[in-house]
Amino acid sequence: MGIFTKDIATLDDLFEHQLQDIYYAEKKITSALPKMISKASDPSLKKGFETHLQETKNHVERLEQVFKMHGKSPKAVTCPAIDGIIDEANEVSGDVADKKVLDAALIASAQAVEHYEITRYGTLIAWAKQLGRTDCADVLQQTLDEEKSTDKKLTQMAETIINRKAA
Amino acid sequence: MGIFTKDIATLDDLFEHQLQDIYYAEKKITSALPKMISKASDPSLKKGFETHLQETKNHVERLEQVFKMHGKSPKAVTCPAIDGIIDEANEVSGDVADKKVLDAALIASAQAVEHYEITRYGTLIAWAKQLGRTDCADVLQQTLDEEKSTDKKLTQMAETIINRKAA
Repeated sequence: MGIFTKDIATLDDLFEHQLQDIYYAEKKITSALPKMISKASDPSLKKGFETHLQETKNHVERLEQVFKMHGKSPKAVTCPAIDGIIDEANEVSGDVADKKVLDAALIASAQAVEHYEITRYGTLIAWAKQLGRTDCADVLQQTLDEEKSTDKKLTQMAETIINRKAA
Repeated sequence: MGIFTKDIATLDDLFEHQLQDIYYAEKKITSALPKMISKASDPSLKKGFETHLQETKNHVERLEQVFKMHGKSPKAVTCPAIDGIIDEANEVSGDVADKKVLDAALIASAQAVEHYEITRYGTLIAWAKQLGRTDCADVLQQTLDEEKSTDKKLTQMAETIINRKAA
């Protein structure tokens, strides 16, 4: 987007911009997750992150499908929000000495990432429906459902295993 | 936090660090909301942001209360996540030409902020409970309930008014 130009004129433009933003975010998450996997100690957490990495790769492909349905080529625009969320995750995890406490920090960081995705997909689906593109909304909904499910699994894992070990 | 030191040794330290992070975030939101209020055109959206500004000021006070209960002075640590979310909100809103489309962008940005708060308070409450501090958890829960309620109201406003006008 230009600094001195106003490139977004319609809700359709805004939808496309948001698609480009979450496309950048999903790709960034794909590159951040291997680091989180290597830092995690608890086997169930490590496995949870590995599963999520596979899912994230599918989310990238689904976004490419939505770009295509929308008649556009996939394009990423820098997303300062996900950059900040991941910078913060790296900062905090670098500050934690104990491995069990580090697992608690990692799971919290992963949930911050999930919630960013949940809010963005929720918005994209609402806009797609408003634009009469229920076909795009349906594809995006599959990803939203997976993000919500992952967030719930992480909460359960935190409350039943990871936080107890860390305390 | 130090770059070459690992300052977080226990779950209690991690809880305190997260309190400092969300304290920074709530203060940042307090300073960002007036700009969003001035940019919003729809009267119900403007009013919704104004109500949220008042609530956010209460959230800052509740955090100061939790710091005190925890035997610590309130302190903020830079939170790259909220900085990124708000930078992105400013960037996108600066790119939108049409006022009705701008309202749709503003409401999406506000929901990204809400979701960041929802994930962080959720984590803080889980850690407080694990640490046996249900007193701290109860205070934080009040804020989490308000954040979730605000997010729901924003979704409803987007789907019934703002997105329709923008389309």
